[in-house]
Amino acid sequence: MCVYFCVCVCVCVCVCVCVCVCACVCMCVRACACLCVLVCACVCLCVCVCVCLCVHVRACVCVCVCVCAPVSPAAQSPERLSCILPDEDGPTPTLFTQMDRLQHEGGELEWKESARWVKFEEKVEQGGERWSKPHVSTLSLHSLFELRTCLQTSSVVLGLEAHSLPQIVDEIVEKQVQDGLIAPQLKEKITFVLLRKHRHHTKKSIHRSLADIGKPSPSNKGLFSWTENSPYAATIRNDSRSMDDISVTPTTEQLKNKFMKKLPRDAEASNVLIGEVDFLEKPFVAFVRLAQATTLGGLTEVPMPSRFLFVLLGPPGKAKSYSEIGRSIATLMVDDLFSSVAYKARGCEDLIAGIDEFLNEVTVLPPGEWDPKIRIEPPKKVPSSGQANRSAGGVGLAAANDEEMPPSHKLGEELTFTGRFCGGLCLDVKRKLPWLLSDFYEGFHAQCISAVLFIYLGCVTNAITFGGLLGDATDNYQGVMESFLGTALAGTVFCLLGGQPLIILSSTGPILVFEKLLFEFCKNNDIDYLELRLWIGLHSCLQCLVLVSSDASYVIKYMTRFTEEGFSSLISFIFIFDAIKKMVGAFQNYPINTYFTPDSITAYKCECRGPGQGGPKYNATGMDWSQLSKKDCLKYGGALVGKSCNYIADLALMSFILFFGTYTMTISLKKFKSSQYFPTKFRTFIADFSIIISILVFCGLDFLVSLDTPKLHVPSEIKPTRPDRSWVVLPFGKSPWWIYLASFVPALLVTILIFMDQQITAVIINRKENKLKKGCGYHLDLFWVGLLMAACSFLGLPWYVAATVISIAHIDSLKMESESSAPGEQPQFLGVREQRLTGILVFVLTGVSIFLAPILQYIPMPVLYGVFLYMGVSSLSGIQFWERIKLFLMPAKHQPDFVFLRHVPLRRVYLFTLVQITCLVVLWTLKSTVAAIIFPVMILGLMVVRKILDLVFSQRDLAWLDDILPEKDKKKKEDEKREKKKTKGRDCDDDEEVCRHASPKHNNTLTLFDTILIGLCFAIDY
Amino acid sequence: MCVYFCVCVCVCVCVCVCVCVCACVCMCVRACACLCVLVCACVCLCVCVCVCLCVHVRACVCVCVCVCAPVSPAAQSPERLSCILPDEDGPTPTLFTQMDRLQHEGGELEWKESARWVKFEEKVEQGGERWSKPHVSTLSLHSLFELRTCLQTSSVVLGLEAHSLPQIVDEIVEKQVQDGLIAPQLKEKITFVLLRKHRHHTKKSIHRSLADIGKPSPSNKGLFSWTENSPYAATIRNDSRSMDDISVTPTTEQLKNKFMKKLPRDAEASNVLIGEVDFLEKPFVAFVRLAQATTLGGLTEVPMPSRFLFVLLGPPGKAKSYSEIGRSIATLMVDDLFSSVAYKARGCEDLIAGIDEFLNEVTVLPPGEWDPKIRIEPPKKVPSSGQANRSAGGVGLAAANDEEMPPSHKLGEELTFTGRFCGGLCLDVKRKLPWLLSDFYEGFHAQCISAVLFIYLGCVTNAITFGGLLGDATDNYQGVMESFLGTALAGTVFCLLGGQPLIILSSTGPILVFEKLLFEFCKNNDIDYLELRLWIGLHSCLQCLVLVSSDASYVIKYMTRFTEEGFSSLISFIFIFDAIKKMVGAFQNYPINTYFTPDSITAYKCECRGPGQGGPKYNATGMDWSQLSKKDCLKYGGALVGKSCNYIADLALMSFILFFGTYTMTISLKKFKSSQYFPTKFRTFIADFSIIISILVFCGLDFLVSLDTPKLHVPSEIKPTRPDRSWVVLPFGKSPWWIYLASFVPALLVTILIFMDQQITAVIINRKENKLKKGCGYHLDLFWVGLLMAACSFLGLPWYVAATVISIAHIDSLKMESESSAPGEQPQFLGVREQRLTGILVFVLTGVSIFLAPILQYIPMPVLYGVFLYMGVSSLSGIQFWERIKLFLMPAKHQPDFVFLRHVPLRRVYLFTLVQITCLVVLWTLKSTVAAIIFPVMILGLMVVRKILDLVFSQRDLAWLDDILPEKDKKKKEDEKREKKKTKGRDCDDDEEVCRHASPKHNNTLTLFDTILIGLCFAIDY
Repeated sequence: MCVYFCVCVCVCVCVCVCVCVCACVCMCVRACACLCVLVCACVCLCVCVCVCLCVHVRACVCVCVCVCAPVSPAAQSPERLSCILPDEDGPTPTLFTQMDRLQHEGGELEWKESARWVKFEEKVEQGGERWSKPHVSTLSLHSLFELRTCLQTSSVVLGLEAHSLPQIVDEIVEKQVQDGLIAPQLKEKITFVLLRKHRHHTKKSIHRSLADIGKPSPSNKGLFSWTENSPYAATIRNDSRSMDDISVTPTTEQLKNKFMKKLPRDAEASNVLIGEVDFLEKPFVAFVRLAQATTLGGLTEVPMPSRFLFVLLGPPGKAKSYSEIGRSIATLMVDDLFSSVAYKARGCEDLIAGIDEFLNEVTVLPPGEWDPKIRIEPPKKVPSSGQANRSAGGVGLAAANDEEMPPSHKLGEELTFTGRFCGGLCLDVKRKLPWLLSDFYEGFHAQCISAVLFIYLGCVTNAITFGGLLGDATDNYQGVMESFLGTALAGTVFCLLGGQPLIILSSTGPILVFEKLLFEFCKNNDIDYLELRLWIGLHSCLQCLVLVSSDASYVIKYMTRFTEEGFSSLISFIFIFDAIKKMVGAFQNYPINTYFTPDSITAYKCECRGPGQGGPKYNATGMDWSQLSKKDCLKYGGALVGKSCNYIADLALMSFILFFGTYTMTISLKKFKSSQYFPTKFRTFIADFSIIISILVFCGLDFLVSLDTPKLHVPSEIKPTRPDRSWVVLPFGKSPWWIYLASFVPALLVTILIFMDQQITAVIINRKENKLKKGCGYHLDLFWVGLLMAACSFLGLPWYVAATVISIAHIDSLKMESESSAPGEQPQFLGVREQRLTGILVFVLTGVSIFLAPILQYIPMPVLYGVFLYMGVSSLSGIQFWERIKLFLMPAKHQPDFVFLRHVPLRRVYLFTLVQITCLVVLWTLKSTVAAIIFPVMILGLMVVRKILDLVFSQRDLAWLDDILPEKDKKKKEDEKREKKKTKGRDCDDDEEVCRHASPKHNNTLTLFDTILIGLCFAIDY
Repeated sequence: MCVYFCVCVCVCVCVCVCVCVCACVCMCVRACACLCVLVCACVCLCVCVCVCLCVHVRACVCVCVCVCAPVSPAAQSPERLSCILPDEDGPTPTLFTQMDRLQHEGGELEWKESARWVKFEEKVEQGGERWSKPHVSTLSLHSLFELRTCLQTSSVVLGLEAHSLPQIVDEIVEKQVQDGLIAPQLKEKITFVLLRKHRHHTKKSIHRSLADIGKPSPSNKGLFSWTENSPYAATIRNDSRSMDDISVTPTTEQLKNKFMKKLPRDAEASNVLIGEVDFLEKPFVAFVRLAQATTLGGLTEVPMPSRFLFVLLGPPGKAKSYSEIGRSIATLMVDDLFSSVAYKARGCEDLIAGIDEFLNEVTVLPPGEWDPKIRIEPPKKVPSSGQANRSAGGVGLAAANDEEMPPSHKLGEELTFTGRFCGGLCLDVKRKLPWLLSDFYEGFHAQCISAVLFIYLGCVTNAITFGGLLGDATDNYQGVMESFLGTALAGTVFCLLGGQPLIILSSTGPILVFEKLLFEFCKNNDIDYLELRLWIGLHSCLQCLVLVSSDASYVIKYMTRFTEEGFSSLISFIFIFDAIKKMVGAFQNYPINTYFTPDSITAYKCECRGPGQGGPKYNATGMDWSQLSKKDCLKYGGALVGKSCNYIADLALMSFILFFGTYTMTISLKKFKSSQYFPTKFRTFIADFSIIISILVFCGLDFLVSLDTPKLHVPSEIKPTRPDRSWVVLPFGKSPWWIYLASFVPALLVTILIFMDQQITAVIINRKENKLKKGCGYHLDLFWVGLLMAACSFLGLPWYVAATVISIAHIDSLKMESESSAPGEQPQFLGVREQRLTGILVFVLTGVSIFLAPILQYIPMPVLYGVFLYMGVSSLSGIQFWERIKLFLMPAKHQPDFVFLRHVPLRRVYLFTLVQITCLVVLWTLKSTVAAIIFPVMILGLMVVRKILDLVFSQRDLAWLDDILPEKDKKKKEDEKREKKKTKGRDCDDDEEVCRHASPKHNNTLTLFDTILIGLCFAIDY
C-alpha cells in the first residue's frame, strides 16, 4: 500500500512540474491563450490529486472494516424441485420428440410425422409440404388438462425392458387388457394399427418434386375404418406376426437425414403417436419409458435410440383435440423439468405431479389480447429451469433482467494491487504463458484472413497519414519510411510478446503534437532534435518500467464506463471528423469549375507563358513554354494563363463517389448478415469480408474509370526519408550534458500520455462484453510499450501506443458466434478469437508493404477515408452513451426497453447524458487547440467529474447508468448484507426491493451540498 | 347475354382483320421479322378467342345448372357463449382498468397507481417513474387459480346502489362483517385504509423534474403497520367520518389528463385495489358492481364513471402474489367475454364460470421455451371473441389465417353484365354521383399537397419525355407543347368526370410506337398525317363507345392476379430500366476524360479553326473563328481541334450523384416513418413529403454547385411546336374519301391498346387491398377516354390513357392509416383519400407549367430520373409476384411465413413463379422489338397462359397463389356445398379439411393431358 501511495504522490507532483515546464515551452510559442488552459489544467489536476488521495484513504479504512465481516451468502435460488427429484444426479439427456399421426393414404394405413421438437416446435405444413419455422409451442390449457386426465386413466409402464417396437406394443396392449381397460378382442386390431409403417417428412429431391407436378395432392384421410372385409383384417387372420411393416434397422433415408447434426450425441428420442380409429369406444392411452434407450427401427425420423413412447388412439370425431393432446405431451417431454421427472418417475402420480409443476410455471396469454394462431418466434434467451439468468452487458434490451441491481462491475484479479516488486508483471506473464501455443494455432481460421486484410489497410493508411504529418512537423526527420518501419517493428514485437495481443499499436494525435512542439523547441534553441528525443524516450521508458514494477496500472480500476465512453467516443468522433475533413479537402484540392458550360469549351484553356509581356518563346532550357507541363512551368518561373488553370475536372466528384460508396457499401454488406437471403454461411462470409469486398469493388470502379484520383503511395526503397540522418541515433555527442538529465521532465509528460492512452484502450478492449477468456495484461503491455519506446528512440522511429479505434475494429472483426444447436435457438456471442497471429501478420505485412508498392498504388485514398469513416461510426455503435444520446430524439413511448430505463427516471438519464456530452464538448475544444498535448491528462479530469457525479446521482442510478466506483462497491455489499438480514424469509415485491436498496445513507442528507456541487461541476466544465 | 356474345365475336373478328392489315403495313416498312411476330400474334389471338368462347359457353351452362340450387349456408360460428349470456343485447362499454397498490410513503399511507389497462397492460416502472410500453399481460396460471379461489370466498356485491366511495366501502365492509368473514373490530381499520388518497402516475413537468434532482428517490414501503399509537388510530378515534381524504369531485390533475383522449366517450372504469396490512389474518376480498356507473372522485386516473371495484387486502408477506392476483382480475376485466359476463352476472358462480370460460381459451407458453419476464408486443390483429378473423390481401404474413381456402376473389357488382344498352355506364354514373361533393371536400388535407407536388413532377417529366420522343417521331407535328396541353386537358377532364379519379392519364409507350409507324406510313404514301390521325381517333372513339354501351368491360373479370402482376411488374421494370438508361445516357452525353492528369492541364484545349489548312482567320460573318462557341463553330463549318473537345467535365458524375442521391434519400425518408425517432406526426410528415424533400435538397445541392447539369426546360409560349400547323385539325379536304373509312382498321388496334391499358390499370387501382370505398367505374372511365381521344384528335394533341406506375404512386401517396385508439393497438390501413382534387390540381398545374418555366428550370433532370427510379421500385413492392421471386434467393428455413407457403408446396410456388418470369421475359422481348404495338394484345396472351395453368395446378394451389377464374368459382361453390353436406356435424382437423376440399374431380384424371399441356405451354412461351 505504501509503495502505491508513494508512486501516486510522485506521479502527481511530477505531473504538476511537467505541466509548468510545458507551460513555459508553450509561452515561447503562443502566449496568453495557452496560459489560461494550462492554469485550468493545473487546478484540475490538483483537485484530482486531492480527491484521489481522499478516495484512497477512505478505501483503506473500508478494507480494514470489512476484513472481519463474514462472507455474504449467495442469493438463494428458490427451491422448486419437489420430492420426486430429491438429488440432482447429473443432467438428463436431450430429448428429441416426434409426433406422428395415423393417416390413411393411397389405400395404405401409415403413421405420418406431423411435428417435431428439440427445444422448439417445428410443424409439418401439410399443404406446403415443408417444415415450419421453429416456434414456441403455444398450447391450450384445455388440452393440458385433458392430457392430465388421460394419463390418470391410462396404463403407464415405466422401466420396460424391451428391444423392439412389436415387443413394446405387445406389452402395453397386454397390460391394458389385463387392467380391463380394453376388450381382449381389440388387442389384435390395436397391435396392427400401432405397427404400421412410419413416414417421415424428409426433404424431397428436386427430381422427385418435378415428377410430382400435375399429380393431385394426396388426399389424407385421418380416420381408419376397420371392416371385416378389409385386406387388413385378412392379414391379421393369416399371420399375426407378419403384420408389422416397420423395419427393424434404420432405413437409409433415416441414416441420411441431415437433421441428426442438430442433435447432441447422447440425445434420446421420445415418440408421440396419435390416431383416430373407428373400432374404439373410448381412448386407448399408454405412456412407456424403456429401461434402456433402444433404436426402434423406422420409428423415429433420425436413427436415434428411443426412450419414451406415448400412444393415444381414440374413437373418431376428435382428431383436433387428440392432436392438441399430443402436442401437449410432446412439449412437456422437451421441458427440462418434466423430462427429468419423466426419467425418474416411479409411477403415474409422479408424472401428474410433473404436469402440475409445469402448469404452475406456465405463462398465460389472455384470449382477448392474443391470437393463439400467431407463431411466436423463439426468444433470444430462455431461463434454464430453477435458475435466474443474468443478462451480460448494460446496453441490451431488458428481456429478462428485472432484478434490483445490475451485476456489479468486476475488475478481475488483473488489477489487484500485489504490493510486491513487479508482482503484477509476474502475474501477467504467468497468466499469459499457458495460452502462448493456442495464441498461434487459434489464428488459423478464414475469418482471420479478412481481419488481417482489413486491419492491415487501416494500419497502412494510418502509417502513411501520420508519416506524412510527422514528416511535415519534423522537417522529414521522421517521414513515411520511418513510420512504416516503426509500425512494423513495434507492432510485431507487441503482438508477439504483449499482454493483450488484440491491441493494435499506432501513432496517435497527442504524440504528434508533442513531436511538433519538441521539434520547434529544438530548432529555436539549436538543440539536436533526434538526440534530445532519444533521451526523452529513454527516460520515459524508465518511468514506464517504474510504473510497471510498482503495479501502478492499479489506478485504472477507478475508470468507469463514464470515462471509457467519454474517451472512446471522443476518439471515434475524431476518426469521423478526420475522414470527412479529408474528403472536404479533396474539393479544395480539385476545385470544380462550377460556371462551365459545355458550349463554351472553346474559351477554356490554360497556357504556360514566359515571364514578362511578350517574353521569349523558349525558356532557359531551350523548351517551348507552351509545351511545359503545369509543374515544370511553375518551376521555371512561367505563368499559367487561362480560364481552366484553377480547375481540375471530375476528381473531386469521383473522390466523393468512392468515399461515400465505400462507406455505404461496407455498412450495407455488414447488415446483410441479418437478412433473409442466401444461406447463413454465405451471409457470414459476406459480412466478414464486407470491408475487403467494398475496397475491391471501389478500387475496381476507380480502375475502370481510370481517373487520376489520389492513390496510396508507399515508399518503395528502404532508406531514411531525410538523407542526412542514419538509421541509428547515438546518445552522446551533440548536446550539453544537462540535456540528458533535463529531458526527464518532458519525458514525464510523454509517460502520462502513453500510460493513459495505452491503459484506457486496454480497458475498453478488455470490457466484459467482449467475453475475453485469456485474461489481460496491463502491466505486461506497459512494459513492452516502454521498451519499444526506447528502441524506437534509438532508431529514430516514431513512438507507438495503443490505437483505440483500430483496436476496437480488430476485436469486432474477430467476433465469434455460436452455430445454433436446437432449431430456433438464437446464436450466442461466444467471444473473440484471441490470438497473436492476426496482429503479427498485420505488422509483418506493413513492413513488407514497401515491396507491395506496385499493387498498393491502385488503391485510391478516398476509398481508405471511407474505411476510416466506417471504423469511426462502427466503434460508436454499441456504446451505451451513444444509445442514450439517441434517446433525446425519441418520444418516451417509442424508446426501446433498455434495462436502465426501467430503473432510472428518464430525467436522470437525460441529465447524466448531458453531463457526458458537456465533457465531450470540452474535451473536443481542448483537443482542437494546442492543449491537445495535455489531452490524456484530461481523462483524469473525466474521472474527477465522475467522482462528483457520485454526489448528484444516487448509487442505484449510477449502478444502472455507469458502474459503482470500487470503494462504493464494498459499502454496498455491506449495506446489502445488513438488508438481507432484515428481510430474510420475507417474500417481497421486486419493485419494493429496489426501493429498499436504493436508500444509501450518505445520500439522504445531501440535498444542499448537492446543488452547490452541481454548480461547481458545471463551473469546472465551462 | 346475346349482345355480349355478338360484341365478343365482333371484337375478335375485328382484331384478326386489323392484325392482318397491320401486318401489311409492317411489310412495307420492315419485312420478314415483323411477319413472324404477327403470325404468332394471330395464332395466339385465335387460341384466345376460342378459349374465351369455350369459357363463355361453359359459364352459361353453369349458371343454368346453378340457378335452382339452394343458397349455401354460411359457416357456423362456434357457439361459445354459455347460458350466462343468453342474448347478445348490445355491446358492453369499453372498460378502463386501473390497479392501485397500497403504499406508505413519506409518513403517509396512500394508494398508488401501478398499472392500467385499456386493451393491453401498461405498467408504472417504479424505478424509471414512467409508463412502460403497452404489452400483452402475461399472467401466471397460479395467480389465476388463486383469484378463482379468492372470489369464491369473498363477498361479491352485484348491482350496488351507491354514489360515493365511502358508501361503497361501508356496504362491503358491513357485508363481510355480517357474513362473518371479518371480525367487527377490523371494520374501522379496513374502512380507514380503503379511503386513503389515490396517487396517480401522471406526467411530471420538466420544472418539477429538475427540482427533483438530488432528492433521494422516495422509499416506498408497501406494508402498512397499524399501531395503536399511530396518528391514524387517533384519527379514527376522533371522528370516523373525517378519515376519508379522497376528494369527492375529480381533481384538476385528473381533468387535465391527456390519457382521456385514448378512451371512447362511453368508457367506464374498473378499479383494482391491492394492499398488504398487518392487522389482517386472512385476506379481505370484495368484488363490487355498481348499479349505475358513478364518478368516484379521485379514485381513477381519469375523470370517468367507475362501474367495478375489486379489493384485496391481505396479511403481510405476499405482496408479489397479491399483485399478480390484481393483474389477473384486471386483465379479466378488459377481456371482452369476461367483461360482458361481469356486466350481466347474477352471482359469484357466474363470475367463476366467466373465469373458467376465460381459462378455457387462454394460450399457454411452456416455461422451458419462454421467459415470462419478456414483455410481448401487442399483436397486429387480435381475434374479436367468438369470431374468426379473415386477413385481407394475399401477401400478408400468415398471422391468423389458417383456414382451408383464401377468401375468394370478389369482383364487385361493377363488372356484372347488365345485358342492357349502356347498363354498366348508367350504374357507374349512379354509383359515383352521390360521392361527387365529398370528392372535393375530402381533398382538403395536408397529405394531398405532397401528393399533388409529387404526381405533378412525375407528370411534367413524363410530358416532357414523351413530348420530346413524339416530336422526334412525328417531325414535330406533336411536340412538347402539344404534350403539355394535351396532358392538362385530358387529365383535368378525366379527373373531373371520370369513374376512377385516382387514375392518372399519360402518354404510354405503345401509343408512341403506333404514332411513329403511322407517321412513317403517311410520309411514305403521301397522306396527310394529322387528318388520317383525326379519322383514326374518331373511329376509335366510336369503338370505345360501342364497348361502353355493350358493357364489354365485363371481360376484365377474367383477369386474375397473374395477369395484373405480369402487366404491372412489366411496366415497373420499364420505368426502372428507362431511368437507368437515361442515367447511362448522361455518361455518354458528357464523356469523362479518363486519362487526364492535373499536371498536364496545359496540354488540354479545344480551339475552333476555320475550314482548310491555314484558312482565313475570320469567318463569313466576320467573326474570329477562335472566339466562336462550340455550337457556333460547328454551325459555320469550323472544326474543333484539341484534346479537350470530346470531353465534358464533372457533369456526368454530378448527374449520377443527383440521380442516386434523390433515389436513396427518398427511400430512406420513406423508411423513416417506421423509425423510433421523433413524434409520430413529424415522422408521418417526413414520410409523406419524402419525395418533395429529396427533390428540394438535390435541387439545392445542384444550385449550390451550380454546374450546368441538364435541366427541366418547359416551353414558355403557347404555340404549336411546328409553325405550319394550326390548333384545330379539319376532318376533310386533304385526303381521298376512302381514307375516312379505311382508318377504321388501324383504329381497331388503337382501341384494343387503349382498352387493355386503361382497364388493367383500373383493375390494379381498384384492388381489394387498397380498400377503396367509393366504387369504381370501368365503363365511365372508358367512355371519357374515348371522348377525350376524339377531342385530342381534333386539336392534334397526343392520345391519353391510364398510366399504371404514376397511378399506383398516386394511390400510395394518398394512403390513410388509423390513429390507434387503445395504447398498443397497431394502426390499421384505412384506405385511400378518394377525391378528385389532387388529380385536377396536378393537371391544372401541368397546364400552368408554361408560366412556371422560370422556376421549373432549376430542377435538374437527373433528380427527376431518380424520382422515376423510385416510382418503379416502389410500385414493385407489395406485388406478391415480387415477393415470390425473392423466395428463390432465400433458403427455405429463412422464408417469411406467407400464408401461401403454409398451404402450397414450395416447388409449386417456384413453378408458378417461373412461369410468370418466363411470361415477363417474353413480354419484355416483344416490347423491345417493333412488336411493341401489339403489346396490349399480349396481355390477352397472359390470360391464355393463366387458363392453361388451370390444368397444371390444382384449384387449391391457384386459390392461394392467384385467384380462381370466375366459372371455377361457381363450380367450387357447388363442390363445397356437396362436401358440407357430407361432413356436416363432424369435428375435423383443419389440415385434413384442406385436403378434402382439395380434390376437385376434374383434376384427378388429368395426369397425362397435363404433361402434354405443360409442354404446349412452354412451347408457346418460347
